[in-house]
Amino acid sequence: MACNSSDNTGKTIRCKAAICRKAGEPLVIEEIEVDPPKAWEVRIKILLTSLCHSDVTFWKMDTALVAKFPRIFGHEAVGVVESIGEHVEEVKQGDTVVPVFLANCGECRDCKSPKSNQCSKFGKKLYNGMPRDGTSRFRDMNGQTVYHFFCVSSFSEYSVVDVAHLVNINHYPLPPEKACLLSCGISTGLGAAWKEADVEEGSTVAIFGLGAVGLAVAVGAKQRGATKIIGVDINDEKFEIGKRFGITDFVNPSTCGDKSVSEVIKEMTNGGADYCFECIGLSSLMAEAFNSSRNGWGKTVILGVEMHGSQLTLNPYLLGRTVILSLFGGIKPKSDIPLLANKYLDKDLSLEGFITHEVPFKDINKAFDYLQQGKSLRCIINMDP
Amino acid sequence: MACNSSDNTGKTIRCKAAICRKAGEPLVIEEIEVDPPKAWEVRIKILLTSLCHSDVTFWKMDTALVAKFPRIFGHEAVGVVESIGEHVEEVKQGDTVVPVFLANCGECRDCKSPKSNQCSKFGKKLYNGMPRDGTSRFRDMNGQTVYHFFCVSSFSEYSVVDVAHLVNINHYPLPPEKACLLSCGISTGLGAAWKEADVEEGSTVAIFGLGAVGLAVAVGAKQRGATKIIGVDINDEKFEIGKRFGITDFVNPSTCGDKSVSEVIKEMTNGGADYCFECIGLSSLMAEAFNSSRNGWGKTVILGVEMHGSQLTLNPYLLGRTVILSLFGGIKPKSDIPLLANKYLDKDLSLEGFITHEVPFKDINKAFDYLQQGKSLRCIINMDP
Repeated sequence: MACNSSDNTGKTIRCKAAICRKAGEPLVIEEIEVDPPKAWEVRIKILLTSLCHSDVTFWKMDTALVAKFPRIFGHEAVGVVESIGEHVEEVKQGDTVVPVFLANCGECRDCKSPKSNQCSKFGKKLYNGMPRDGTSRFRDMNGQTVYHFFCVSSFSEYSVVDVAHLVNINHYPLPPEKACLLSCGISTGLGAAWKEADVEEGSTVAIFGLGAVGLAVAVGAKQRGATKIIGVDINDEKFEIGKRFGITDFVNPSTCGDKSVSEVIKEMTNGGADYCFECIGLSSLMAEAFNSSRNGWGKTVILGVEMHGSQLTLNPYLLGRTVILSLFGGIKPKSDIPLLANKYLDKDLSLEGFITHEVPFKDINKAFDYLQQGKSLRCIINMDP
Repeated sequence: MACNSSDNTGKTIRCKAAICRKAGEPLVIEEIEVDPPKAWEVRIKILLTSLCHSDVTFWKMDTALVAKFPRIFGHEAVGVVESIGEHVEEVKQGDTVVPVFLANCGECRDCKSPKSNQCSKFGKKLYNGMPRDGTSRFRDMNGQTVYHFFCVSSFSEYSVVDVAHLVNINHYPLPPEKACLLSCGISTGLGAAWKEADVEEGSTVAIFGLGAVGLAVAVGAKQRGATKIIGVDINDEKFEIGKRFGITDFVNPSTCGDKSVSEVIKEMTNGGADYCFECIGLSSLMAEAFNSSRNGWGKTVILGVEMHGSQLTLNPYLLGRTVILSLFGGIKPKSDIPLLANKYLDKDLSLEGFITHEVPFKDINKAFDYLQQGKSLRCIINMDP
């Protein structure tokens, strides 16, 4: 066991966590016990966390296969290392870290390849426990196991995260709320525009769904010099909001009349957008994004996780088009998140405007309300307001 | 009108053609009249032609929208320029040319982009006449219009082809039968491996359908240094044949027992092939090719034209995978076919083994029999045996 000066090193910590006892029910702030980190694990004090759509999707999902309750959600966060387990060399006590739902062991064939971000050492685990042994580090006051989520579980004052799921950003003087944004959604959108689609100057872009991920795609596309960035959303207010992030044109599917969204976009782009992005998670929208892409070189990047378990159905005669089923926008956590941090610090990348709300930890359920009502992009949940 | 010394310049030519009067019926060798070429058109004397699966697919297809009868099929050929129409500067009388079903005007946005091979000037025309005005240059002896196919119609001693559909290979001393192979199927397979998939050294490849296109993919993958090239075909004999083209392993879907082909391929490749190619045109096989590809970076290139009008249904949770709906393997006719010719002449590319049969023009229906019975890869039809 590595040594450090914390009083709690090697000891169980008692702290507050927002527990979900049943799918879809409001979280309840309770006392829990957090075990000390085992080998290759790190216990972190969460500074800030924010609510991502995937939390809401899985919070609603009452499927025994993927979800065990009671559970601690949350996977977009920034924290400080409280203590480390054996073999941990990458971070030390006091380091600022960004936890990420996607592992990055650095040693497997995928981590070593620039083409993949799907760590093959840890990628196949279900998300109810720690990635190496599947067990939990959380218990409630009755001694009942509380399960993890996405290997992060940031809706807790303290969490235990495998070092493969942590990015050390100690040398990047980022404001904590900006670091938190890079933990999931914003990185996904930027990665999709830059790594997956590789958006070119002068190109046309269509973004289906103007939540934080879709708007981050717009920021990435604008930075690359895309000249037409079409936002597609059923909420008209998203056009004004989107303009701040680079959206130049807007389509509301509910006001297209007899035309399909893809017909409208094809008219707006002289035959189809160069790059289309689906940021919702509906197979019908994925197909419509594909239909909106240009023959010859149109690329459609699917970022949304299909929320109803539906298959993706495509017209196989739309030739010359490519579909990429992207995970985390192709971002490799340990190498790419520091690059994004550098871009922000160099003022090459704007992260303004994504945080629309902030609540203290005790009001975490308000963050769920804001996101589900379409009011918020990112709601920061402050653990220590 | 450009001048040349041919007696027939500017005159109608009477010659033999293999006419299809009704979908699925045997072709009949008849006398036809071939008009002189109009502006931007070229009349060519066909030297050799060969039968491609697309001919058979469209020959069977009795759909008024795409097919008008009587019709002259054939789109894989090599010929010699007999006469040229006004404004034609790219070829002259006597030049050896390869006609291609895909236009390449050289001036449109697509032709100018390295990312597309779908000429947007001519790409949207239906295939019953000349691409600029839609009319036919063929008549039968009753004066009835005989329709074109794929802008080539090479099952005729003479045909009129738009210059946008011709590749001048006069400076490439290719044997005519090798030039004929580059006109469609073999270029498709090579392009798919090299341009669309960009197969890397040491990679694993799965090819669904070991016809000429699939075997050309194998040649391309082998040349790139792929170490495992799995052929998938319901005809066991294709394994021995395939070995000559680079196939190293074989899966017969009908002998996989309880397992799906993709399960077998995932076992053979430690998780999925790096590159998968569908060369048949069945949506179920396209999905199975996709399922056989690797998470993280698996690329599936669809080369087959779906033959039943079915949609392509994919599992949207297979993340990190890419699907490319390819036309002609991404080959840009006027720039890439000369490159392939050079590779052949430099002995960088083997075109041996693809021609399994040869018939005189009068026996053209035998070529249909051989291909449909799975006996032939390419059957050369010799116009002047």
